[in-house]
Amino acid sequence: MDKRNCNYSLYLVTDRGLLGDKDLAKTVEQAIQGGVTVVQVREKNLSSAEFYQVALVIKGVTEKYGVPLIVNDRADIALAVDAAGLHIGQEDLPVAVARKMLGPDKIIGVSAATLAEALLAQEQGADYLGVGAVFPTNTKDDADSVSLAELEAIKAKVKIPIVAIGGINGSNIRDVMNTGVDGVAVVSVIVAAADPKAATCKLYQLMKQ
Amino acid sequence: MDKRNCNYSLYLVTDRGLLGDKDLAKTVEQAIQGGVTVVQVREKNLSSAEFYQVALVIKGVTEKYGVPLIVNDRADIALAVDAAGLHIGQEDLPVAVARKMLGPDKIIGVSAATLAEALLAQEQGADYLGVGAVFPTNTKDDADSVSLAELEAIKAKVKIPIVAIGGINGSNIRDVMNTGVDGVAVVSVIVAAADPKAATCKLYQLMKQ
Repeated sequence: MDKRNCNYSLYLVTDRGLLGDKDLAKTVEQAIQGGVTVVQVREKNLSSAEFYQVALVIKGVTEKYGVPLIVNDRADIALAVDAAGLHIGQEDLPVAVARKMLGPDKIIGVSAATLAEALLAQEQGADYLGVGAVFPTNTKDDADSVSLAELEAIKAKVKIPIVAIGGINGSNIRDVMNTGVDGVAVVSVIVAAADPKAATCKLYQLMKQ
Repeated sequence: MDKRNCNYSLYLVTDRGLLGDKDLAKTVEQAIQGGVTVVQVREKNLSSAEFYQVALVIKGVTEKYGVPLIVNDRADIALAVDAAGLHIGQEDLPVAVARKMLGPDKIIGVSAATLAEALLAQEQGADYLGVGAVFPTNTKDDADSVSLAELEAIKAKVKIPIVAIGGINGSNIRDVMNTGVDGVAVVSVIVAAADPKAATCKLYQLMKQ
């Protein structure tokens, strides 16, 4: 896949801690069947061996559906499973260092919580930005807050795709899309759902309205 | 450096938690001045950005003295700082995956606590083994125990260099060297010492006796 064609509109971020009794690979598969366009495997507190195994299993699912897989934080795991890309936060490897390792054809996404961080990441060669947290969230402790007005202002000033993240669900997804962003990233609304496919379908339809 | 010429005899493993008021880079430099022949940067519970920065600073020190730097666990950090190699435990990336990423010229060391693990790692292409814990240690929670007799048996059956690790200090370093191993790895006896250079000199002399 040419990375410029990546569809960021409904971006799933994994979190095994929210699965309950469900299986991660099965949940990801159902989310893809429901309309998820890109999957980021983000699993903290796993050993490298475990994270590699999880990423490998999810790669099997995403590949089956032709959906790009992004690995959070770990450039080595991204390379090891030949993921489509890497997502790095402000506490992860510098963009330039990651780019050197991954080469020009891999997607590198960067988390940004301010316009300054967004512009810097774009200048450093990020392919897209994850901007948030738009709404309060329990899935990321250190999340800064970004209002819808700030999100709109950032979208107006950067050229690369922007994926909004943080507490997005069926009740606010339209407000987020109305800021002009290219996509929304969700975690719990899909991962914690009893029926991940139905939950994704519902989000997808609201998003496309 | 040709990796086959690596001198594993006095192998320092870092642990910032044991430094007290001392500086890590300065401590590593003094240890090298005292006789350390290889340095592994092993820092758990750091963000990727922090681990990268620590590894980069230590690389500056090891390079100045021509001492090989090994990075623990993280193949991406090893690549990012152009370390001489990577050390992987049983909970880290598989050897074959790490080798594919690092290429044939980088050192890959593997932790082994049994003869079976040692032989498997050798077969998978490890360049050296870290075998232990030989004595009880507080620096690694999950350390299995390997007796001196087991260490000697492993050394007799594997061809690649063996570095013994775990609770090694001035009072037992001779017993460890007498098993025929190629080197000893130490953490606290140098990192926690008030005078890291003097502590290293003392170990070095005992080792060479």
